[in-house]
Amino acid sequence: MIFEEATISSERIYEGKILNLRRDEVTVRDGRTSYREIVEHSGGVVIAALTADGKVPMVTQYRKAAARPTLEIPAGKLEIGEDPAAAALRELREETGYTAAKLQRLTSAYSSIGYSTEVLHFYLATELTQGETDFDEGEAIDVSEYPLGELRNMAMRGELNDAKTIVAVLMLHERFGSADAEGNR
Amino acid sequence: MIFEEATISSERIYEGKILNLRRDEVTVRDGRTSYREIVEHSGGVVIAALTADGKVPMVTQYRKAAARPTLEIPAGKLEIGEDPAAAALRELREETGYTAAKLQRLTSAYSSIGYSTEVLHFYLATELTQGETDFDEGEAIDVSEYPLGELRNMAMRGELNDAKTIVAVLMLHERFGSADAEGNR
Repeated sequence: MIFEEATISSERIYEGKILNLRRDEVTVRDGRTSYREIVEHSGGVVIAALTADGKVPMVTQYRKAAARPTLEIPAGKLEIGEDPAAAALRELREETGYTAAKLQRLTSAYSSIGYSTEVLHFYLATELTQGETDFDEGEAIDVSEYPLGELRNMAMRGELNDAKTIVAVLMLHERFGSADAEGNR
Repeated sequence: MIFEEATISSERIYEGKILNLRRDEVTVRDGRTSYREIVEHSGGVVIAALTADGKVPMVTQYRKAAARPTLEIPAGKLEIGEDPAAAALRELREETGYTAAKLQRLTSAYSSIGYSTEVLHFYLATELTQGETDFDEGEAIDVSEYPLGELRNMAMRGELNDAKTIVAVLMLHERFGSADAEGNR
């Protein structure tokens, strides 16, 4: 039996554009109280797209939190109330120009369960048609395509430094890539 | 060439126990300015331990951000200046009672690169010796061991809802588990 932390009081600290911050006073196991700092985030979608020739579109963009550009799987923020599947198709089209005729849900996972309510919804997009990209204002994104086996090897060598990207690449590889992974190094 | 977002000004919004929050005014691609809300976090360690008989110790604990208990790979917060490998060995011992004679770094990855500086350092711990657990005050943790192949199948079926746990399980499975994954369902 896992103890549930009941909220005694909750303080609103910040209401922002992409996140809010609150501080909850909670009961903990031994009857005492503690505090939990919680980031409220509306969640996101992550799109692992696979082309007919086994390549995965990837994006490189500057990330202020990392203070550098990073190579990532396409992803985007979910607006409150927005359908995750529709958001996945929209983000894929905006960031890579691809339209997907087939979309399958892979999983949903908390990105930072210790302090953030953000849930990421992972999708597999296939049967792709190339169109025009349509970046959000203020986004500066480079798009490139990598063979799935190469991305798997980059993940295993520690060269992908974004957790959602590792999740998407390894789920894709577990599903499709066993046969050719080593050959693509 | 990826545009770098220069900081024009930075506002300290909150200084807390496990995180701080700041709001940066930055230059964006088209010469205009925008804001970035950044959670500052000292990072964490994630420990994928593998017993001699192919099992992985897992922990279940109540998570206020998820408002429910979740099944996760052992992990812990890194104190500022703390050596990640030492922290990994400490957290494994505290949460599961295991002492590891061998520790290998798997990767490091941002958990929520869009808004958090948190980097998770993933380790593989082997050559385990069982001892006593030593939970932090206020922690209420159940420990259980799962066959690696079963965890891999749970990840692929969408039954593990914590991103760091999926990363650790699939990296372990890519490395050790191909042979017996299907048999362990």
